[in-house]
Amino acid sequence: MNDTSEKSAPSPAAAQTLDLGFAQLDLDRQRRQGAPETIYGASKSAEQIAKIAAALRDNGQIPVLATKLAPEKASAVAAALGPEFQYFPEARIGRLGPARERDGLGSIAVVCAGTSDIPIAEEAAVTAESLGNEVIRVRDCGVAGLHRLLSRLDTLRSARVVVAVAGMEGALASVIGGLVAAPVVAVPTSVGYGASFGGVAALLSMLNGCAPGVSVVNIDNGFGAGYLASRINHMR
Amino acid sequence: MNDTSEKSAPSPAAAQTLDLGFAQLDLDRQRRQGAPETIYGASKSAEQIAKIAAALRDNGQIPVLATKLAPEKASAVAAALGPEFQYFPEARIGRLGPARERDGLGSIAVVCAGTSDIPIAEEAAVTAESLGNEVIRVRDCGVAGLHRLLSRLDTLRSARVVVAVAGMEGALASVIGGLVAAPVVAVPTSVGYGASFGGVAALLSMLNGCAPGVSVVNIDNGFGAGYLASRINHMR
Amino acid sequence: MNDTSEKSAPSPAAAQTLDLGFAQLDLDRQRRQGAPETIYGASKSAEQIAKIAAALRDNGQIPVLATKLAPEKASAVAAALGPEFQYFPEARIGRLGPARERDGLGSIAVVCAGTSDIPIAEEAAVTAESLGNEVIRVRDCGVAGLHRLLSRLDTLRSARVVVAVAGMEGALASVIGGLVAAPVVAVPTSVGYGASFGGVAALLSMLNGCAPGVSVVNIDNGFGAGYLASRINHMR
Amino acid sequence: MNDTSEKSAPSPAAAQTLDLGFAQLDLDRQRRQGAPETIYGASKSAEQIAKIAAALRDNGQIPVLATKLAPEKASAVAAALGPEFQYFPEARIGRLGPARERDGLGSIAVVCAGTSDIPIAEEAAVTAESLGNEVIRVRDCGVAGLHRLLSRLDTLRSARVVVAVAGMEGALASVIGGLVAAPVVAVPTSVGYGASFGGVAALLSMLNGCAPGVSVVNIDNGFGAGYLASRINHMR
Amino acid sequence: MNDTSEKSAPSPAAAQTLDLGFAQLDLDRQRRQGAPETIYGASKSAEQIAKIAAALRDNGQIPVLATKLAPEKASAVAAALGPEFQYFPEARIGRLGPARERDGLGSIAVVCAGTSDIPIAEEAAVTAESLGNEVIRVRDCGVAGLHRLLSRLDTLRSARVVVAVAGMEGALASVIGGLVAAPVVAVPTSVGYGASFGGVAALLSMLNGCAPGVSVVNIDNGFGAGYLASRINHMR
Amino acid sequence: MNDTSEKSAPSPAAAQTLDLGFAQLDLDRQRRQGAPETIYGASKSAEQIAKIAAALRDNGQIPVLATKLAPEKASAVAAALGPEFQYFPEARIGRLGPARERDGLGSIAVVCAGTSDIPIAEEAAVTAESLGNEVIRVRDCGVAGLHRLLSRLDTLRSARVVVAVAGMEGALASVIGGLVAAPVVAVPTSVGYGASFGGVAALLSMLNGCAPGVSVVNIDNGFGAGYLASRINHMR
Amino acid sequence: MNDTSEKSAPSPAAAQTLDLGFAQLDLDRQRRQGAPETIYGASKSAEQIAKIAAALRDNGQIPVLATKLAPEKASAVAAALGPEFQYFPEARIGRLGPARERDGLGSIAVVCAGTSDIPIAEEAAVTAESLGNEVIRVRDCGVAGLHRLLSRLDTLRSARVVVAVAGMEGALASVIGGLVAAPVVAVPTSVGYGASFGGVAALLSMLNGCAPGVSVVNIDNGFGAGYLASRINHMR
Amino acid sequence: MNDTSEKSAPSPAAAQTLDLGFAQLDLDRQRRQGAPETIYGASKSAEQIAKIAAALRDNGQIPVLATKLAPEKASAVAAALGPEFQYFPEARIGRLGPARERDGLGSIAVVCAGTSDIPIAEEAAVTAESLGNEVIRVRDCGVAGLHRLLSRLDTLRSARVVVAVAGMEGALASVIGGLVAAPVVAVPTSVGYGASFGGVAALLSMLNGCAPGVSVVNIDNGFGAGYLASRINHMR
Repeated sequence: MNDTSEKSAPSPAAAQTLDLGFAQLDLDRQRRQGAPETIYGASKSAEQIAKIAAALRDNGQIPVLATKLAPEKASAVAAALGPEFQYFPEARIGRLGPARERDGLGSIAVVCAGTSDIPIAEEAAVTAESLGNEVIRVRDCGVAGLHRLLSRLDTLRSARVVVAVAGMEGALASVIGGLVAAPVVAVPTSVGYGASFGGVAALLSMLNGCAPGVSVVNIDNGFGAGYLASRINHMR
Repeated sequence: MNDTSEKSAPSPAAAQTLDLGFAQLDLDRQRRQGAPETIYGASKSAEQIAKIAAALRDNGQIPVLATKLAPEKASAVAAALGPEFQYFPEARIGRLGPARERDGLGSIAVVCAGTSDIPIAEEAAVTAESLGNEVIRVRDCGVAGLHRLLSRLDTLRSARVVVAVAGMEGALASVIGGLVAAPVVAVPTSVGYGASFGGVAALLSMLNGCAPGVSVVNIDNGFGAGYLASRINHMR
Repeated sequence: MNDTSEKSAPSPAAAQTLDLGFAQLDLDRQRRQGAPETIYGASKSAEQIAKIAAALRDNGQIPVLATKLAPEKASAVAAALGPEFQYFPEARIGRLGPARERDGLGSIAVVCAGTSDIPIAEEAAVTAESLGNEVIRVRDCGVAGLHRLLSRLDTLRSARVVVAVAGMEGALASVIGGLVAAPVVAVPTSVGYGASFGGVAALLSMLNGCAPGVSVVNIDNGFGAGYLASRINHMR
Repeated sequence: MNDTSEKSAPSPAAAQTLDLGFAQLDLDRQRRQGAPETIYGASKSAEQIAKIAAALRDNGQIPVLATKLAPEKASAVAAALGPEFQYFPEARIGRLGPARERDGLGSIAVVCAGTSDIPIAEEAAVTAESLGNEVIRVRDCGVAGLHRLLSRLDTLRSARVVVAVAGMEGALASVIGGLVAAPVVAVPTSVGYGASFGGVAALLSMLNGCAPGVSVVNIDNGFGAGYLASRINHMR
Repeated sequence: MNDTSEKSAPSPAAAQTLDLGFAQLDLDRQRRQGAPETIYGASKSAEQIAKIAAALRDNGQIPVLATKLAPEKASAVAAALGPEFQYFPEARIGRLGPARERDGLGSIAVVCAGTSDIPIAEEAAVTAESLGNEVIRVRDCGVAGLHRLLSRLDTLRSARVVVAVAGMEGALASVIGGLVAAPVVAVPTSVGYGASFGGVAALLSMLNGCAPGVSVVNIDNGFGAGYLASRINHMR
Repeated sequence: MNDTSEKSAPSPAAAQTLDLGFAQLDLDRQRRQGAPETIYGASKSAEQIAKIAAALRDNGQIPVLATKLAPEKASAVAAALGPEFQYFPEARIGRLGPARERDGLGSIAVVCAGTSDIPIAEEAAVTAESLGNEVIRVRDCGVAGLHRLLSRLDTLRSARVVVAVAGMEGALASVIGGLVAAPVVAVPTSVGYGASFGGVAALLSMLNGCAPGVSVVNIDNGFGAGYLASRINHMR
Repeated sequence: MNDTSEKSAPSPAAAQTLDLGFAQLDLDRQRRQGAPETIYGASKSAEQIAKIAAALRDNGQIPVLATKLAPEKASAVAAALGPEFQYFPEARIGRLGPARERDGLGSIAVVCAGTSDIPIAEEAAVTAESLGNEVIRVRDCGVAGLHRLLSRLDTLRSARVVVAVAGMEGALASVIGGLVAAPVVAVPTSVGYGASFGGVAALLSMLNGCAPGVSVVNIDNGFGAGYLASRINHMR
Repeated sequence: MNDTSEKSAPSPAAAQTLDLGFAQLDLDRQRRQGAPETIYGASKSAEQIAKIAAALRDNGQIPVLATKLAPEKASAVAAALGPEFQYFPEARIGRLGPARERDGLGSIAVVCAGTSDIPIAEEAAVTAESLGNEVIRVRDCGVAGLHRLLSRLDTLRSARVVVAVAGMEGALASVIGGLVAAPVVAVPTSVGYGASFGGVAALLSMLNGCAPGVSVVNIDNGFGAGYLASRINHMR
């Protein structure tokens, strides 16, 4: 008799988890949430990443994404995993297995304020593409030259979700939030210096934006924004 | 000849804006973004709120919501606007005009961690209901007694969007984020004391959550969460 | 067939939770963790507190503690609950039902640095006494007059757990941590001004103490310290 | 023989300073910097303010401004100083003596993002008017409804200096900074809640704005912005 | 006659302290607190570490632990101290002398949220093992896949003390705190990026956890948690 | 035989401490440090303050100072202690017993930047006078009108210690630090608004001052500055 | 028919923007704001910088400035752009094309507090010179030796705009603000250590300066100060 | 006729300042403040340091100290200045010219909490010795082993000034402040990790210490403490 309500029935849980010693893989993620577990690559070794990725693939959890993956580490992972593994240097994402077939309902616009924000924008874009979405990239549209943004309004308004990526003062999210009717996922970046405090200025700006319809993810979390945008874009 | 590209054509802009002296009402908001401008009621006088609300209503922008509205100020607004104006004391929202007809596609679950978080959860719920959504309230499901949350899993999983409202350590958002496949909008609240720093602990916790699919709005911004959830719930 | 492992079996969970609408009471807490749920009284109404307390008592979860309870609110709760309810004004704790019989193994020393820290020290002491512990109070032993502390060393060393309560610079915890062999639970208080930042100085000081064997709870969290000390003091 | 170079010759300095015991009035300010000393009214008594104002006036330093002056205190000051003293309740400024004749070269546009920012915008406007400038007020032009701002572009572009006043995310400063060729003085306000942190979000946003030509004053420092704008507007 | 009460009698103090010039070794620690002084290895030279360790050993204070010891420095220390010295690379701990015999009363569970948290979890585990405790390692059980944690509940509940190690949002400590009856020592780690602020998000989350019975040590202070857990596990 | 070196010999310690239950008075302070214990009056009741003050006086520890004492509380204390008790309203200090005879070697200059800083400057001045020092007050000498300070240079240079009190940007301390050869004790005050953050701006400014010979006490800690200045002024 | 007021007329916008893929160049900037777009060189590759600079030059937007340009990156840019490109190593600015003819009305004084602040002061100076201004450099005039500043008063007072550059406590801005009648643009620098917090101390000091007429730009933003000073110096 | 009171008489000022282009040397410092200008060596080149040092020496301002001087830079300076230049590697101080003759009145005790704090303690000690003081070094006396400090009480009490150097929680300053009658100069160090925040924890602890007679200098500012201690020790 099972009388402790938090405890899952033992056998399914065991079946859904693969124990690698240094990692417990969540093999239920794809079924439960529509996408496999993603590997945060910054503080794992290449060997750990390759083992996790291979194990996920072997259990049908594809594509496997590894984020925040430095180029040298990516080379080591690639050597271990072979040609099925692809590295996107600008996005610093490694992917094992092909992108999912494009099954999102509309397009996702990934807009960034400046050239320096492109890496995080690409992290969002590659994530969303890998998860089956059409992505439209709109780059270097910061508010200092507003006409650059306004000239792309039709593009923005045609998207089903907008991802707004900006460092420094992060005003882009507010301005877009006031122009479109789609959900806006704002990504503050650590681009800037001095009182940008590694992205805090942009983060606070985005959290306090006066335009509703905007929500925010962690500083430099392009992956999270792309993932969430994909989830929304797949809602029927 | 119009040679400055940022400048809108003068006449439509003028037509879309109503100048009350102390406020420029955005009469294009409903058309452009699917919902009227909302009044931030904390630092406006009752007289200002009543005037803005009436002007918006007179221009077909309904329902008009005024948020962060203290009870005494609400009484004064009600006196000025008559029975069309309704006050939701727990949510501290005033509304002029009826809720929109329920035209959202699914339901929105508004979950809060503790009894003290109910006011902000209600702000989200009343906002979403006013904008035409079915709302399911799940209260006092903090992670200290996990079975309370787990026993409501079916409810959470049936919702099209989940709004997770929590103060203190804000762990609720992460836990829900790992359990559902719907987008999760996290609302940190200022409930707590000491090192909660007026909601900062919950905010940071929610921004750093390891479960993807979660995005965050400002501390105590129940309105923003309800609004965004409604926007997502109306996507077809 | 239940295939989602996080979901508890529905019936026990339902049985263990009492739904008051604004609160879901965790009736399993006493069994699971050895003490009933505690009511955080700061942001609940007197009516809510009285209802929760009564419901917990009616389900055998006693004594019920309500913390951070202002005197006026306590009066209203007392009026609702009758003589079984007792208020400890210095500790700002209300208690429904008698303290548990003294079944802790040793004594708990609650030491505070200054007279101004007494309320938080009392919150710890009343909590520990209510949960069945002998408590020894050592007051006003800040490090500015070290002999006051050193003259009480025998007392401190005879305790099974020491709770160290201090505001301002919080040095008390480090100094005690270097003198005793028992676990030390440090409670920073918000006593101070200027660069004490509402207890942050003491909190950081306690977290960085060079004496091992010390752990820290939230600023002004006398309850948490008393609760944890009781848990340790009951270990056999 | 005077051999310490920092020391001014004693007599002129003595002549330029009026000693009231609790205050040393700088009677050289008007000559040296083109405007008299201003009284920071928040933490002085009505009696002190009235005495300082009268002494400055008696020495030809007019108009005298007292900022951050609460209404009740203003009444007491008015009672002491008579009809020459005028109170601007929205700006919370008291003024002894008439505004200087309008001798600024162009106009100063004072733009604010929302209705709640009007008090600080008025502090800037009344300061600038008192110092001899034509002021154009543009209110409630936040970026959530960009057309409100764009429809006023001609006005903004005709000004010699623009003061941009905004709370919350403070994006107004950046957007204006990209649209006009005049110097922009940005004033963050403490309007907002949650992660606005009393104006910090707007302050950081304005400091990190990607549009050059913008500089920033302290949170809620409408006076400083109006004063600086006047100084620039008087440059020949 | 000794008339200054703070001053210890000179001779015993001298006897208990060994003066190395750059360090005063506390030879009374083992007797007074049950475990020898530990060497904080981050900012000492290999030579200093080796000398301190040897001197402690020569005075019967073993095992000697040196924490936060980088691999290269460890090699130099090992060269000086010979085979008695052992280095645990994952934990970055060096140890001179064997672990104490296992004399703790129960087991200590060291749980970590993610693979990246393993180094700090190992610091806690190696510390606890060195001090005579049985340690059970539970890895990669973050709340994003709750079933991984729930499937290990029996293990967690069988432990006498639980050490919960987590970076990012640190929700693990709260969740465990609600599930077990043992004292929980929470260790925030600096794992994460952006608004994790080097562990601050996890620290605040853990301090504000709504589950009682949890206390917190410094960010990345695995040693402190292992030490405290050992102290509790040795209480009789 | 005394074998624990931290423990004072029991009898003197007991003799030097007077136990009032809520406070342990350090009766050795005058002998040990040249001045009696001071009462921090902000968070003690009038009754507690009066009892402590009387007990200290009765044991020859005079004058007794109570700082941060609000006027109403002071009235209650005065009623309890009679005419020997004197209240300094500007300094918010209560004193039981006469000031010590003037036995300091030179004078102490207490300089404040603005009229709003006078209360903290008076706290320093009354403290220093009570402890037997000649105090020279120099008020409203902020750097915005540098000649006011420079005209008082002879006074500043004749002092044996300078206390520099300033809020807002706190530049006064640096400027004085570059002009005099005496030790400068800097006191940041909480005067200001916006980004002064309750005195943090002044505190940081003073800590980073490029003129050596300056040290800093807590924000608004006039007492600490006056006390330290007195200690230095009594050095022979 | 154009019915969305925010949208610029398509053709001019297209004409004014040059799309390089990774950057959208604002070719309207010179006309609209009197100076071309500037390249933030810190996080762009040499190749990107060279391409942007060449494209701006080819469209008559000269001189092109690239700021925060490290020496090695500058070499690569120089190799791509040829002798028209000039690098200012102290200022870390690269410039393509000659400085504009000197058409500013007066001079700009760039004052720095210490030798370590020279790089940021040079960033301001080179920017201002490139934009057609006479610049007077006043170096190492920190307030610790006030006579150094006072001996240059005539120079400072003859300038039309003063740029004050200082790290550490940043008092220079306040002191200058009290001495001159020209607008003062304050630049906090990240020079310092400890509680300077990378320039925060100087930033806060400058924002809270009690001398009016001072405004502030971002930490280390010499470019922004030079640009704004130029804009003011060109006002007729 | 001199009519501007802030301006020094031109000739003495010119005489007292030596212009090296990149630096204005204050040749009046020795006369005015009793010790020459010190060189902050962290952000100057070896060439700049050597030139400044030589120029100061050539003008009789000796000894010249250069602080925060890295070893490699010191070698380059030594090569330029010859054997008169001496480098203190532990203190990271370079000195040109011999220490002043010992003319301080008493001794200065420099106490540090741990071995890792020795470099900053040495910075204070070498500074004080260079300025003519006898220095007593007391090392590794942190409060975790209180008897180490108490056994040195006679030494501490015999000093005329005590410099207390500590990182981590910085409790040493408070404890010493309660034990001695001399002025205590507290130096927080950046030693520590996690929530020590580069010395902030120690800084706040020291600012909030409940023992009077303690003042604080910047984090890691051993020089400032040694300089101030010397100034006090020379008071007659």
